[in-house]
Amino acid sequence: MNQTKTGPAIILVRPQMGENIGAAARAMLNCGLTDLRLVEPRDGWPNEAAQANASGALEVVSNATLYKTLAEAVADCRFVIGTTARARDMVKPVLVPETAVQAILQADQVAGKSVSAIVFGPERTGLENDDVTRCDVLVTVPLNPEYASLNIAQAVLLITYQWYRATHVRPDLPDILNLNDVDIAAKKDIETLLAHLTDALDESGFFPTEQQRPNMVHNLYNMFQRMRLTTQETQTFHGMIKALRGKEWKK
Amino acid sequence: MNQTKTGPAIILVRPQMGENIGAAARAMLNCGLTDLRLVEPRDGWPNEAAQANASGALEVVSNATLYKTLAEAVADCRFVIGTTARARDMVKPVLVPETAVQAILQADQVAGKSVSAIVFGPERTGLENDDVTRCDVLVTVPLNPEYASLNIAQAVLLITYQWYRATHVRPDLPDILNLNDVDIAAKKDIETLLAHLTDALDESGFFPTEQQRPNMVHNLYNMFQRMRLTTQETQTFHGMIKALRGKEWKK
Repeated sequence: MNQTKTGPAIILVRPQMGENIGAAARAMLNCGLTDLRLVEPRDGWPNEAAQANASGALEVVSNATLYKTLAEAVADCRFVIGTTARARDMVKPVLVPETAVQAILQADQVAGKSVSAIVFGPERTGLENDDVTRCDVLVTVPLNPEYASLNIAQAVLLITYQWYRATHVRPDLPDILNLNDVDIAAKKDIETLLAHLTDALDESGFFPTEQQRPNMVHNLYNMFQRMRLTTQETQTFHGMIKALRGKEWKK
Repeated sequence: MNQTKTGPAIILVRPQMGENIGAAARAMLNCGLTDLRLVEPRDGWPNEAAQANASGALEVVSNATLYKTLAEAVADCRFVIGTTARARDMVKPVLVPETAVQAILQADQVAGKSVSAIVFGPERTGLENDDVTRCDVLVTVPLNPEYASLNIAQAVLLITYQWYRATHVRPDLPDILNLNDVDIAAKKDIETLLAHLTDALDESGFFPTEQQRPNMVHNLYNMFQRMRLTTQETQTFHGMIKALRGKEWKK
């Protein structure tokens, strides 16, 4: 799997739960990463719980490589990022994931190949200081400071997703949205308008058959959502329907 | 909790597993969001599994509001984004999370308050077409097309994290990184250098006590990581240590 490797290695140091190794592998594969390295997993290796929880990412787990120390796991790397949930008493830059990913891309580009790794510590304690000394920089996922706890697979996902996004094209905001109109209708006004319209269409025999009706109503809803009417415009529509039917709408 | 509300409401339509509601609440609170709305949860409400799995985010679960239909849940919203894992046969723009978040910020800014919602469908099937008709746009998390499956809490986390980041300051890459040097040393060369250095320091009685040694060694490792030596420079260091000790290093 390493022949086709692009992007950073993900290194789990002394992971405790096999389930978390499997979940981390899934998060990696979600983001197109396959180079999983394990340093002294608590329950040995291979691990049944890791395989069971890997789902479609079983190949990532099966191809994981095993090391005695973090130093061995990063021996071929030239840029190593440690993950941390808290500020540490060490002189290392602490990056956000987006910046860490830019640094990885830069380091890999200079080397002409993938030479980076992202290191995650044990679930309960995080990386020990001894592990941190092997890292060039640290990365923290900035979250609500009053509730910042993440499980290891979520941390892998949030960080590796930044890598995936940074290496894929990002489409622009479509013009279709009418977001700048201050009088944009509340959804309840759209609902009321559509109820009025479909009632009027029912009464007037617009729908050919009962079977075709649901699809046609869906299309109406979609059309009206897409219009992004103003509140004033919904009133105009009510007025139009009333005028066309020649009578008030009583519900 | 809604008095202090900033940011989009998160709406779960017909969620199946209580555990997933709890996990989604945690992901929301990770990203500073608290307005959870539920449309017809399968197992009724309140739900013990949701509370048990909410951990520190129990308040988000306890304050969740309950609705019979998505239309009711979005009645006060002016911009509604539906999440989808696949392309749909409907005429709606499909945004990536970063763009969706920019659209939310724009819609909220124009309204002068939070008027947006992000809607997630049932775990197994996703949003039904009838739900999609109530959405202005769709959002898809772009992932490895060969392995794009996410659970609902992960989807909530990836999307709401983009909101959290977009509303918080992003620090720049520190200057400290020497990423542009093509000859940057591989980690194994740093390990070898530090082994040489600490051996030499041990022999020369540099460490005052055995207790102080580990901390001092950590500091050395950190200093050397921070230097980001080139391969050539590691050789220079080896030469310096050898010269200072007056003898070869035999390991």
